[in-house]
Amino acid sequence: MALEMNELNEIIRKVTEEVCSRYGVCDTPAASAAGGSMDPASLAKYIDHTLLKPEASVEDIKKVCDEAKKYHFASVCVNPSYIRYVAEQLSGSDVTPCCVIGFPFGTQTPEAKRFEAQDAVTNGAREVDMVINVGAIKSRDWHLVKRDIEGVVEATRGRAAVKVILETCLLTDEEKVKACTVSKLAGAAFVKTSTGYSKGGATVEDVQLMRATVGPEMGVKASGGIRTYEDAVAMIKAGANRLGASAGIKIIAGPSGSSGDHQCINCGTCKTQCPTGACTIVKNSY
Amino acid sequence: MALEMNELNEIIRKVTEEVCSRYGVCDTPAASAAGGSMDPASLAKYIDHTLLKPEASVEDIKKVCDEAKKYHFASVCVNPSYIRYVAEQLSGSDVTPCCVIGFPFGTQTPEAKRFEAQDAVTNGAREVDMVINVGAIKSRDWHLVKRDIEGVVEATRGRAAVKVILETCLLTDEEKVKACTVSKLAGAAFVKTSTGYSKGGATVEDVQLMRATVGPEMGVKASGGIRTYEDAVAMIKAGANRLGASAGIKIIAGPSGSSGDHQCINCGTCKTQCPTGACTIVKNSY
Repeated sequence: MALEMNELNEIIRKVTEEVCSRYGVCDTPAASAAGGSMDPASLAKYIDHTLLKPEASVEDIKKVCDEAKKYHFASVCVNPSYIRYVAEQLSGSDVTPCCVIGFPFGTQTPEAKRFEAQDAVTNGAREVDMVINVGAIKSRDWHLVKRDIEGVVEATRGRAAVKVILETCLLTDEEKVKACTVSKLAGAAFVKTSTGYSKGGATVEDVQLMRATVGPEMGVKASGGIRTYEDAVAMIKAGANRLGASAGIKIIAGPSGSSGDHQCINCGTCKTQCPTGACTIVKNSY
Repeated sequence: MALEMNELNEIIRKVTEEVCSRYGVCDTPAASAAGGSMDPASLAKYIDHTLLKPEASVEDIKKVCDEAKKYHFASVCVNPSYIRYVAEQLSGSDVTPCCVIGFPFGTQTPEAKRFEAQDAVTNGAREVDMVINVGAIKSRDWHLVKRDIEGVVEATRGRAAVKVILETCLLTDEEKVKACTVSKLAGAAFVKTSTGYSKGGATVEDVQLMRATVGPEMGVKASGGIRTYEDAVAMIKAGANRLGASAGIKIIAGPSGSSGDHQCINCGTCKTQCPTGACTIVKNSY
């Protein structure tokens, strides 16, 4: 979409004004649908089962792929050097191969991000989570922010959906709204809160703000610090329709601290006897 | 250099054995040369004046360039999206434009790192600090580790020196020695300890081990957590011939906690009156 600088600024200004004026009273479709509680097992389809630490070995990645196939998570999300292996491991399953681009700083040039994204889809990525250029935001260079996202969208068009990681903990509310608007204009499929490797992760408030900005037709992914069933439900109620987490198995095991309505999925992470009687293994948490 | 897998493994084994057997008794040329103390101002030529946080704005980068020219640091080290601007700012000065590649995770494919490096030298980088693929090390895939570095060395040959960031805090001593050896075989100019964005930074022990492994003809850069004159001198005595730091101005201001031999460089970071009487500005530390 070719836009003059003043047109882009005008669109950003209008959306920011509109969202900021109605923020706090908005209700989102996702929030309404989520209701008060959710079946823990149904959360699996929201979760990008994630392993991004740089020291992860191929054995660690294999484990994550096996888990994702077993529990039917939405995707496996890894660093690009593992995406070819992950695509092979997930072949024929209902789990999408996903990889990050420009992770976790987002400070590459648009050209380098475009190449990295193209390389990733060639290697089998069907979703890519790119990090926005926060430095460009802080320099108020919104044309660079948009061009950066557009490059990745173009490089992956028809092959992978693009999620834009805003790194919300580094942004003001106004910058978050602007970043959402620019991501939508650039053709991204999702906005996403966090890398999980900066000063903070997803918050209910940020997810509400992002959903209010992008409307119901775009995805919102909450990520960073989502470790329990309760965290996950809170994010979905706030408007998220995708969650990034390394604790997916724990999340779908259901509410923390309760055993009455616990649905045993034989996850192997609990400490005491399974209260459902469905398995006898030593478990770590209920 | 085309090497069979068993030849590479044999070279790595021999060097590791040799270094590990003499480690602890070795003395390096740099260590001998450094002596007990150093003229603070002479440290400037060791320092890559560094600003890598993703939220740095173009104004922040300009400040770092101005400081580097004023104090004659070795280089300005930034993220790739700023390298063109930095090369312009440093044009005609004695300060080298330097940028990081695959930063800070090092988890891109060799193809993406090669492209990113090529893009960086096209934009004016004359040194590039690439992050090694730690996941490949943990997967014991040394051929991938070597191919990854070779791609960047080839893409920048004759235009930029390559430093390989090992992220030592994630490696065992044996892995550090192997990583140094593979970096040397792949044609890198320097090995470097840390990104400054993982669990730990440079240590005297790691710098000694790296210098012992690569010998006197290769560079060793210490980075991560180097904040004072004393830190800097300790790293040089351990064998480093380059330092990465964001605190360069404080470092070249001389020993912490003393004012007798303080050489005022009018750095503007001190709290009390300048003890040298050379300036009257409010200062933060002595």
